Parts: sequence; structure tokens; C-alpha cells
Amino acid sequence: MVLKPFVRSAVAASALVAAASASAAERPRVREAGIRIGVLEPGPLNGITDVAGVQVGHTTLIEGTAVRTGVTAIRPHAGNLFQDKVPAGFAVANGFGKFMGSTQVAELGEIETPILLTNTLSVPEAAASAIEWTLEQTGNEQVRSVNAIVGETNDGALNDIRRRRVTKADARAAIDAARGGPVAEGSVGAGTGTVAFGWKGGIGTSSRRLPPKLGGYTVGVLVQSNYGGVLSVDGVPIGTLLDNYYLKDELHSAAGDGSVVIVIATDAPLSDRNLERLARRAFLGIARTGSPITNGSGDYAVAFSTAQSVRRTPERRSDVAAIAELPNDRISPLFQATVEATEEAVLNSMFRAVSAEGNGARIQALPLEEVLKLHSEARRTR
Amino acid sequence: MVLKPFVRSAVAASALVAAASASAAERPRVREAGIRIGVLEPGPLNGITDVAGVQVGHTTLIEGTAVRTGVTAIRPHAGNLFQDKVPAGFAVANGFGKFMGSTQVAELGEIETPILLTNTLSVPEAAASAIEWTLEQTGNEQVRSVNAIVGETNDGALNDIRRRRVTKADARAAIDAARGGPVAEGSVGAGTGTVAFGWKGGIGTSSRRLPPKLGGYTVGVLVQSNYGGVLSVDGVPIGTLLDNYYLKDELHSAAGDGSVVIVIATDAPLSDRNLERLARRAFLGIARTGSPITNGSGDYAVAFSTAQSVRRTPERRSDVAAIAELPNDRISPLFQATVEATEEAVLNSMFRAVSAEGNGARIQALPLEEVLKLHSEARRTR
Amino acid sequence: MVLKPFVRSAVAASALVAAASASAAERPRVREAGIRIGVLEPGPLNGITDVAGVQVGHTTLIEGTAVRTGVTAIRPHAGNLFQDKVPAGFAVANGFGKFMGSTQVAELGEIETPILLTNTLSVPEAAASAIEWTLEQTGNEQVRSVNAIVGETNDGALNDIRRRRVTKADARAAIDAARGGPVAEGSVGAGTGTVAFGWKGGIGTSSRRLPPKLGGYTVGVLVQSNYGGVLSVDGVPIGTLLDNYYLKDELHSAAGDGSVVIVIATDAPLSDRNLERLARRAFLGIARTGSPITNGSGDYAVAFSTAQSVRRTPERRSDVAAIAELPNDRISPLFQATVEATEEAVLNSMFRAVSAEGNGARIQALPLEEVLKLHSEARRTR
Amino acid sequence: MVLKPFVRSAVAASALVAAASASAAERPRVREAGIRIGVLEPGPLNGITDVAGVQVGHTTLIEGTAVRTGVTAIRPHAGNLFQDKVPAGFAVANGFGKFMGSTQVAELGEIETPILLTNTLSVPEAAASAIEWTLEQTGNEQVRSVNAIVGETNDGALNDIRRRRVTKADARAAIDAARGGPVAEGSVGAGTGTVAFGWKGGIGTSSRRLPPKLGGYTVGVLVQSNYGGVLSVDGVPIGTLLDNYYLKDELHSAAGDGSVVIVIATDAPLSDRNLERLARRAFLGIARTGSPITNGSGDYAVAFSTAQSVRRTPERRSDVAAIAELPNDRISPLFQATVEATEEAVLNSMFRAVSAEGNGARIQALPLEEVLKLHSEARRTR
Repeated sequence: MVLKPFVRSAVAASALVAAASASAAERPRVREAGIRIGVLEPGPLNGITDVAGVQVGHTTLIEGTAVRTGVTAIRPHAGNLFQDKVPAGFAVANGFGKFMGSTQVAELGEIETPILLTNTLSVPEAAASAIEWTLEQTGNEQVRSVNAIVGETNDGALNDIRRRRVTKADARAAIDAARGGPVAEGSVGAGTGTVAFGWKGGIGTSSRRLPPKLGGYTVGVLVQSNYGGVLSVDGVPIGTLLDNYYLKDELHSAAGDGSVVIVIATDAPLSDRNLERLARRAFLGIARTGSPITNGSGDYAVAFSTAQSVRRTPERRSDVAAIAELPNDRISPLFQATVEATEEAVLNSMFRAVSAEGNGARIQALPLEEVLKLHSEARRTR
Repeated sequence: MVLKPFVRSAVAASALVAAASASAAERPRVREAGIRIGVLEPGPLNGITDVAGVQVGHTTLIEGTAVRTGVTAIRPHAGNLFQDKVPAGFAVANGFGKFMGSTQVAELGEIETPILLTNTLSVPEAAASAIEWTLEQTGNEQVRSVNAIVGETNDGALNDIRRRRVTKADARAAIDAARGGPVAEGSVGAGTGTVAFGWKGGIGTSSRRLPPKLGGYTVGVLVQSNYGGVLSVDGVPIGTLLDNYYLKDELHSAAGDGSVVIVIATDAPLSDRNLERLARRAFLGIARTGSPITNGSGDYAVAFSTAQSVRRTPERRSDVAAIAELPNDRISPLFQATVEATEEAVLNSMFRAVSAEGNGARIQALPLEEVLKLHSEARRTR
Repeated sequence: MVLKPFVRSAVAASALVAAASASAAERPRVREAGIRIGVLEPGPLNGITDVAGVQVGHTTLIEGTAVRTGVTAIRPHAGNLFQDKVPAGFAVANGFGKFMGSTQVAELGEIETPILLTNTLSVPEAAASAIEWTLEQTGNEQVRSVNAIVGETNDGALNDIRRRRVTKADARAAIDAARGGPVAEGSVGAGTGTVAFGWKGGIGTSSRRLPPKLGGYTVGVLVQSNYGGVLSVDGVPIGTLLDNYYLKDELHSAAGDGSVVIVIATDAPLSDRNLERLARRAFLGIARTGSPITNGSGDYAVAFSTAQSVRRTPERRSDVAAIAELPNDRISPLFQATVEATEEAVLNSMFRAVSAEGNGARIQALPLEEVLKLHSEARRTR
Repeated sequence: MVLKPFVRSAVAASALVAAASASAAERPRVREAGIRIGVLEPGPLNGITDVAGVQVGHTTLIEGTAVRTGVTAIRPHAGNLFQDKVPAGFAVANGFGKFMGSTQVAELGEIETPILLTNTLSVPEAAASAIEWTLEQTGNEQVRSVNAIVGETNDGALNDIRRRRVTKADARAAIDAARGGPVAEGSVGAGTGTVAFGWKGGIGTSSRRLPPKLGGYTVGVLVQSNYGGVLSVDGVPIGTLLDNYYLKDELHSAAGDGSVVIVIATDAPLSDRNLERLARRAFLGIARTGSPITNGSGDYAVAFSTAQSVRRTPERRSDVAAIAELPNDRISPLFQATVEATEEAVLNSMFRAVSAEGNGARIQALPLEEVLKLHSEARRTR
């Protein structure tokens, strides 16, 4: 069977996708729409790439009527990650998922590969790609052990997931496409086929920059949203107001299940223990969007620091070295930043995602006009 | 000022307390004030005692100008808990606390004593009391190992906590006072001196009852609120609207730190693993009230099931037995119930708490009139 | 260089392998050599397949001079695992490894696929195979989420691991080859290229059957041994007596690093919590062989119960059901059985493994004549 | 009944105790008896106090026929621990115990009080004492939160544990008695009434000093031994040879249950994560003594570093600071040291403990003459 040429990234091949892209161009991010989440300010891009050096790339796979999936790659820095590892922490809110690489992060407190996100049944191909990419990097000729970090959510509502369409080459393309600067959001990359709160989900990002008195650090978050509950937008109960929410139909609600994977970057010099604590806070942001973290969720967060002063270079890995550490007593503002950026990243993923059809289903985009009207009414007093 | 004899339970002895009680009597619970949290319905008492058999008792210690503390006891059932243990799960959101008894709950999946809550430096006295009470129960004459479960938060803002005023007798009085029926909330028991979001915190409770199609189970929650953040009441950003919130003053905010202990009861026949999952959900409710779970928080949750079909009686502890189990796939509505009841229990703790003075400080009660006005404006569209 | 046709399973194609097989045939298992580990008795096969229904299959890959690797598959039962899941527990002693599938086991307490073991860099191919096998099973036509369980150790000393030689077909062949009955040990399957304590390691298995008064349950263990330390055989310090041990050369010892993956089966009706406890005990057996569980180890254990009374059938997964449970107070003999069977399984893996060359290195088999002489001298008094 | 004046520390008041002390003086430590555990060398004292600055104190309570208990205190350094905290890690092998303070150690990675060991039902009194001692230290006048670290095992075989005889003053006396130098072992302090493998257990200590090429660091271990299994002394199966072992009588064996608490000190500059890993290794030493870590065990380990370069002083707790860190890749020899010192500390606790009567029971000391004869025969070849 001859596969039709598939579409990557922003290159839309069908009328549907063209329309979608057109709509996406018109759909604002949550802050552009006038909604301010939390009390801290975002960085200039309001994205994970506000953390200097972090790069993001997408492979978007839209083929025929049944393939709606993809891969998103996050590179903590542009160098040789295996040689210059970054300290990292990992957290699980509900482990009904296939996140790969977690035990080594927990044990050694570090990441040595790009982080890849994809669909549930394509984790092996993404992992193989991350391993091969790492083996090929100059300087890694003697490497014989690679801990690939792969997260996933299940896009089986819009994507014929059993086909296991994602290839190693697709994952590699996402790594190769990774860049700094603005991050494409919505129905792209690993978010191409995902669903959130019964509406179209996807990839979203946001950031917070602490005021100088609190250290001036940046926290950036990227999410792959694919879960449900009772949608709350900046505290406004959109799910119930629009009559589309978890448990509405009691015995089973399509909106209830699903997963979210959260990647958190910061330039604060944190120990791996404190990065793990940061990772745990991300789920508080998820809670604020209205999720009870259902049984079927695979909800994972991974956090890393890009600070040179904590980077695990070959020298620091060979003998006692001085490592910078922001103490426990100074970390709470970074927790607040993580909660806010996670909440806003999820909302961005939905604000930017467009209605989509696939695998016999149609999922509507979040109806922004109604949402913004309801939000505006609720916030008149502010 | 001469220290007056101290007051226990609901018996208020000083003018201050009398006034407080008077105010409390007039302050509504959150639902009485017309605010509905979530999408599920509460039980008839809207409290942890809606779970049949659960008993709660308080010892309230208000003495002179510096003692504002107490003990709250929760008995999972009125029988001999050591002989008829209840399955249980435990979770930590942030472990800056002195919660006692957690490792045995995690290992064996059960509780064998009343659960006591008190202040940070009085955990030993509460634990001693729970141990002695257990040793004295008829049928426990041969018992030589007792796992006391004691939670705490730091009421040092209003209470001279270094005095370590709580005695074994005070803790015993709380156990002995435990009853079913309505639970006193606000500035009572272990909540006598606590502070939440910069206003007066305390003890709060709430419950949810699932519709029959979802099993008809009840989840009840009791909290000792003593933490901070940016208060959100049913999604309305009260903290910012009233200009009293975490990080407002950047380098340090009195509203930011503190802890919460959460006790969750259910009559659903859950395994200890699923009770642990229930316990983890409670923090989603905390997130929805506006907490980033700061570094200084000791945030713990313990959940137990009262179902006879899972109770660990002497026979079931001696050989293979058939234990009922609600499967994983049916548990999500109980997660939703836990999130909602936790959020509402916190709000009840603040709605019912009255302004208090102690240890040289004065903490205002949440200004309900303003809060309800702001909430009403935000929810006109609903 | 032209690759020679590779060899699968017991079919030895080259002179080297033929010789190896010949030697292996003459090398006794530890108990055949007169050494009795522990105080409990093994089952009739003294292997994991003593637990009724458990099946094991190997794919052994020996090609040219540089490929010495393979796959081992363990099927908890011969039926449709995805439909009739088995309760399971998971434990990590040191997480420098790529074990896949652990978070879902921990969250839901169950296994739904065969367990595969392979080399470090071939986890993706093994996982892909387990996923595809599961999707193809009759009755799984609607399955869209599969949690593959894949363990690995690093056979890079004898195998050109960077080549990533293992294919999905190789992994599938191991699943298809799975049978009850005696299990091939030593340099087979995932143990083809592994090294233990500086000698040849591999696959080993053992079992214990409790006396009727203790329930008569069976515990079976299978290991992939690839770690080091100071080898102890039944308490006799072989490592130091033969002058080949960890830290002998101080700054680095080839014998020190590496990993072990342990699979534990039992027919006792255990909860997932108690299966996790069983899994943790396996490392006590590893300790008794002389391992300090070094930094570089990826040491993982997974335990499951085959008892029908705890199996998670579609009915039991849809509503409240009665599940059998051996209580905490009765579990200690199963802990003892796990420790003993793990220790003996490791020794079997080394007793049965033969000297091997590959990738430019040669690893000697454990010199049994000397070992047995030393053991015999040490045990004269017994 | 009038209590006789109780005896503290080495001051023996009754003929029984006098005899015991006499015997203890003649009983060698394991290394004095010619047995060498492991491949590394001990420090000069072969005890936890080989780690510079560490102090140990005991309160031994022997009164009448029924009190055989006590308290042991370990101070990581002689200064103000609350102000100059030490990084620390915590691990549980089996959580059937009442270890207090663990969640804060896990969250913040530090210890701020002396570590106290006592009996199961006296944890509250020990904790109260550690809290009050800390509040009273000069410089701690503003302290309002103290995380007491208290471990325990159940000495109810020889001690009328239900009497809860230990007072705050007893615990305080142990803290006040803490000194560097040789540590009293056997039936002293928290080991006064404990039982191990059916013989008399108690307090034991040991250390290892790494060779200069490996960093020259010291690891010191102190244990409170009170558990069972099949005793192995340096690999020689003493339990079976002397016909006194777990499961000998199948349905229940007095030798099987009980607990061990392990305290590990090092001067290596370790992160809290790596201290937690060190703590986990201690149980490998316990495994080597013959324990399956039964259901009834409360087996806990806590590890801390005394290195100035990692100490958490007020300055380092207030802003970003450079902290020394031994990298992951250099830590394995410290793991080996921990395993060996733990094994030897347990054996020292039994070698030094003398037969004891109490509470109507008599527990024999390990019969050293027989043990040494059996060991000698087994090691002739070495």
C-alpha cells in the first residue's frame, strides 16, 4: 500500500487542515484574549523557550481520514545532552501511562536526552529515535547506555492509534526541528489528535518570570493536554456553564478520562530534589483547570534546570565539585510560577487548537466567543 | 491579665470566646451562603460524619492571651479499632511537617487507632494519648505495638506554641468527645489557632454522595486549614480582589506558608491502594482554593474505608479471606467527590472561623459580606 | 564483513555455540552440585515454571563476533493477559536502568502483557513487539492502550550493543516460544551476553514451595544476572577466595557494575501491595550473593500472582467483586521463599553459563570445580 | 508496688546486671574475635564515632524484673543542629514501625535534631525530649517548628513495654550523655531489651574507611538490632548449624519477627539524594545477616553527612550557595562500606550482648564459643 504524503508541522496539506490553520491563526492565546492567570508575570514569549537555550520541535502527522498524531521534542539545551546532563526531577499524579525513563531520572536526578512526547502506542519508536540520535552525536562514540525520556497521551479518539503510525524518522524530525523562539501550539506535534474536557486539546506553553527581588528566575512549561473534568478557565466554571463536563452523564462521560504530560524548564539553580518538588506542583495547575485526575489518566511531570552552575559536565561527574543550590527557603515563588504557567499552558493548548475530524470522530474546538463572554461577565468586578 | 481557667470544646468561658461563638453562630457554611462547589451533591450533614460510624471530637484550648490551640480526634468507627482495623492510604503533598504514623499505614495499608490532629510541637502528647487509649481498650490487653496517627499544623501565629500546652489529657478528652452528627467547625479543636490565606482558618468538613448509578457511596472530608496562597472561592479570585495574597509583598508574605491536614472517609469498599489514590486527590481540592503548596507546608492526607466488607477483623487477619473491592475502573467519581469535598471543607473552615487574638497577634475572619458580594457578581451568569 | 546466519533458542549453529552447549550440558545447577540455599524446599522443577501456568521463552542471538544478545519472555499465564490481568507489584533497588512500564504497575497494581527482558538499547523493539502481540490477540480488537513491561541489563561487554541488533521479530519469537516446563539457563535469551561478578552471567531460575501448614504456596523466580560485587556462594566468599572481586583494584573494578532484573511469580492470593513487598524482598537475595548494588546498577523486580481468586477478569473489573487476600500476618514465609529463590536463581545463572567471547572480549565461566571444592571445605561441619 | 531506683548507663545496680556487665567485658567484638566482614578496612574505633564529630549517648533502664529498656541518642555534630542542619536521607525496608520525622527528612533532605532510638511505645516521650532540648538551645529562641527524629524497635519480649517506662528525662539524659570515642554496645540504651535471631540483640556499631584513592571517606553505622531470620555470621549459617532459625517450627517462630533501626554517618560530601541511596544500602547488610525482613519488621535507615562543605548553615539556607557534591559515579565504594559496616554492626550488637532476663522471659546471648568454632571451621581455607 502506498502511503499518501504526510504533512509535517505547519505545512497543511488538506482543505481541512488549511481551514484549521486559518482558524488557528485567528484564535488568540489566553493572555492575548485578555485573561491573566495568576499573580506573576510571564516572560517575553510566554513559553517554555523563555528559559534560555530550551528548544522545541514538532512533527505533525495528518494523513487521510485516520491519522491524527505526531511527536513533540524538547531539548533542554542545544549541546550534547549526554555529556552535559541537566539535573531533573520527575513526578506522577496518576500512573495510568507509559512514560519511559522515569526510574533513572528519579535515581540519578538527571536527564541525558531530548524529551519526546507522542501517542500511547508509539512510545517505542520515539524511544528508539532518541537512543539513536544520542548514539550518533559527536563525542558519544563510546556510549552504551542511553536513558530515553518519552511521554505520551492517548489520541485514539481522533487517531487510529492501533496503526502505530509514528516512525523513528518522524521522531527524529521533531528533534531536528527543535528551535528556540515561539512555540507552535494547539493541534500540532504530539497534540495533533488530543482532546481536553471534551473539546480539542493539544500542545500549549506558558512561562513566568520572577521579579528581581525573588531571584529573577524563569519557569517555562509545555503541556500535551488530553484529559478531562469540569473545565475551569481562570476560575470561571466553563464546563458547567456550557453544559459539557465530567459526570454530567453519570455512568460514563467521554470528557473525564485521558492524560497530560507536563515539561517544566527553569534557569534557577535547583537540586534534583527541588526539581522533583517543582514537578509535583504542576499538577496543582492541572487541578485548577478542573481535573480530578481520573483513574484512566497518565499524568506525569518532568522538570529540569538549565543553569550552567548545576549542569553535570564530565568534570563535575568525575570528582567532588561545587554545585550551586537555591535553598529550600527560597523556592516557593518558583512553585507559584509552576502552578500558574501550567494552568495557562493548558488553556493555551485549548485556545489555540482548532476543531478536528479523524478516525470517524469530530471534536470541536473550545468555543472561544462564548468562553470569553462568560469570562468577561464573571470578571467585571476585577 | 490573669489567666482564666481554660475552656474545652464548645463551652466558651471568656467574653472573647463568647463573642466569637456568637459570631460563629451567625456565620454560614459555604453552602448555606448559596455557594455550590462542584457538580456532585453533599450528604445530609455535608460533613465527614455522613460516612456512617465516623465520629469527631474536639478539645479547644483558649487560655489567657497566649494559648490558642487544641486537639481534634477522628474515630473511623466506634468499635475497637485495633482489633477491627480499617484499610487506609496516605499521601504527602509537601512533607515539611511532623505527621506521625505514616510509614506503617503505607506498608500495611491500615489504621488501628483514632486519628488525632493538634499543633506542631504537641504531636508527642497526642501520640502518647492515642497509644494509652488503645492499650486500655477492652480486648487489647496483649497489645504491645500501637501505630498512633497524628497530624499537625503550626498555630504559632496565634498560639504560644513553644509552651507545648497540649497534654495527654487534652488529647484524651478529644477522643472521648468523639460523636457522630454535625461537626463543629472554624476555630475549634486543632483549628483553634490556625490561619489560612491570611485570614482565620480552622476545622472544616464537607461530604459528597454519589448518585445510585455510580454506587451511591459517600466521601467525607475533614481539614485542619493553616496554609496560604491566593485565595480562590469557587473560582472567584478573592485573594487578589481583596488585595491579600501570597507574593503580594514579594520577598515574604505571611499568607504564603503553613500547612493542611486532610482526613478522608468513605464507605466505598476500596483497597488500600485505591485509598492512597483517594488521599492524593485531596490536594487537587487544596489547589483549587489557591495554594501553590509552599516550601513550608506540611500537607498530608489520610483516607480510610469504613465498609464492613473490607474491614480487617481478627478472622480476616489470620487466613485467606474474601475482601470486597471496587475496581479501578469505577473509582473516578470518588476522586471527583474527594476534590470537591476537600475544597468545600477548607472554605467551611474559613467561613465558620471568627476573628481571633492571641500571642500578640490578631487575625481577621474572612470578611464574608465582601466575599459573598464578589462571588455573587462573578456568578450572575450561572 | 558478512554476518553469519544468527541462531535462535537452543538451536546452536556455530562451533562456538555447539561447544558452549556441550559445556552447559555438563555444568550442574547449584542444587545438583550439592549446594542447598536456605531452609525451604524448591518445587519439582526448581524454577519459575513451578508456578502453574507460567511460561518462559528465549530468543538467543549469536552472530559473527559481535552479537551476543537476546530476549527472554515470561508469560504469567497462557490466556489473554490483557483481558485477564494479573495483580502485580514493582520495586527498584537502584534505578540506573530503562525498565519500561513500571508506573502503571505501581498505579493500578496489575500486568496486562508478557514481561520481556533484553539488552539496554533494545527496549524499544521489545516494547513494540509486546504491544503489537497484544493488539493482535483475539478479543483485543478494541484495545487502544497497552502497558508493555520490558526489563533490560547492559550486555555491552560481550555484545556490540550500539548495533541495536534485536528486532521486533526476535522479541516476538521469544513470546511465541514461551512454554511451561524446565527453563533453559545460563547464556541464553536476555542472558546471552551478560556478566556477573566478573564471570559469565545469564538467565537463572529457582523456586520454593511452602509446607502445607504455611499454605503450600509456590514462589518462582527468574533473573537476568549482569551485576557485580564480592561473590558469595551460599555464604562462602568465593570472590575473595578466588581473588576476583569488586574494589580489588580500588579505583575501578570491572566486576562492580551492572544490573539485575528479577521476575517473581506466585500462586498465593496476594494483593498488589503485598506483591510489591515480595518484589522488594528479591534484593535481599541479591545482597546475599555479594552485591552492594552499585551506582551503575539498574536493579528491578516485578512480582505477580497467578491465583484465579485474584485475577482481574472483565467481570471483576466492572463492579465490586470479592477478591481473595492472604493477610499481612501470613506473608513472611513468602518473603523467605523469595529471598532464597532469588539467591539460588542468580547462582544457577552462573553455574549454567559457559565461557563466552564476543565484541573483542572473553568472559570466563565461573570455575565450578574450584568453587565446589571451596564450598565443600567450608561446609564440612554442616 | 514501689519501683526500685532505676539504673542508667553502665552503672549496674543488681547482681544480674553486674554479672551481665562482667560477661560483656569478656565478650569480644566480632573483629576482635578474628572475623573480618567484607573487603574494606574499618576506622580506628570501628564505630560510628569514627566519623568526626558524631556523638553517641545511652540511657539504660533496668528496674526490678520487668523494665529492660532505654534510649540511645546520636548527635550528628556537637553544635546547634537546628541552625547548622546536616543533609540526610531516609529509607524504609518494611514500615511496620513508628519511626518519627521521616516525611520532613524526605522532603527537605535534612536533619535538625539529635536522632533518638527507644522502644515502640515510648516514641512520644523521646520525641518530646528532642523537641524541648532543641527549643532550649541557645540561638533557638524563635524556633517554632522542630522535626524530631525517633526510631524504635519493640523490646516487649524482655521489657514490660505496656508500662511505657521511658520518660522525657531519660531521653534527655541520653542526649546529654552523647560523646565521641568508643560506643558502648550490646544490652545498653535502646538495645537493653532487644532480641535478634532468637538470641540477645542490642546496640552495635562499625565503620569503614575508604582508601585514599577512593576519597578516604569514612562511613559509620550504628544499629538497634531486634529482628530475626536465619542467622549468618560472615556467611556461615549459624542459625541452621545451631538449629535456631526462622521457620524452623513452620507456623510460627519467635525468631522471625522484630525490627532494626540503622543510623549511618559519613564525612563524604553527599547530596541528600545520595544519602538516601546510602540509607537504602544498609538493608543489604541486614540481608547478609540472614533476615528476610518479615511482615512484622519496622526496618528503617537514616543517613547523614557531617561534611562542612554540605552543611546547611543559616547563610546557605538564605540564598544561592555553592555546595560540594561527590558525583554519582564516585559513590559505589561508599555503598560497599555501608553494607559491610551494617553487617558488622549487627554482629557486634550480638557479640557484645549478654544473656538477659526480664518480664518473665530469658534470652540467651549468642553462644560465642560455638559460633567461633563453627566459623573457624568454615574459614580454614581462607
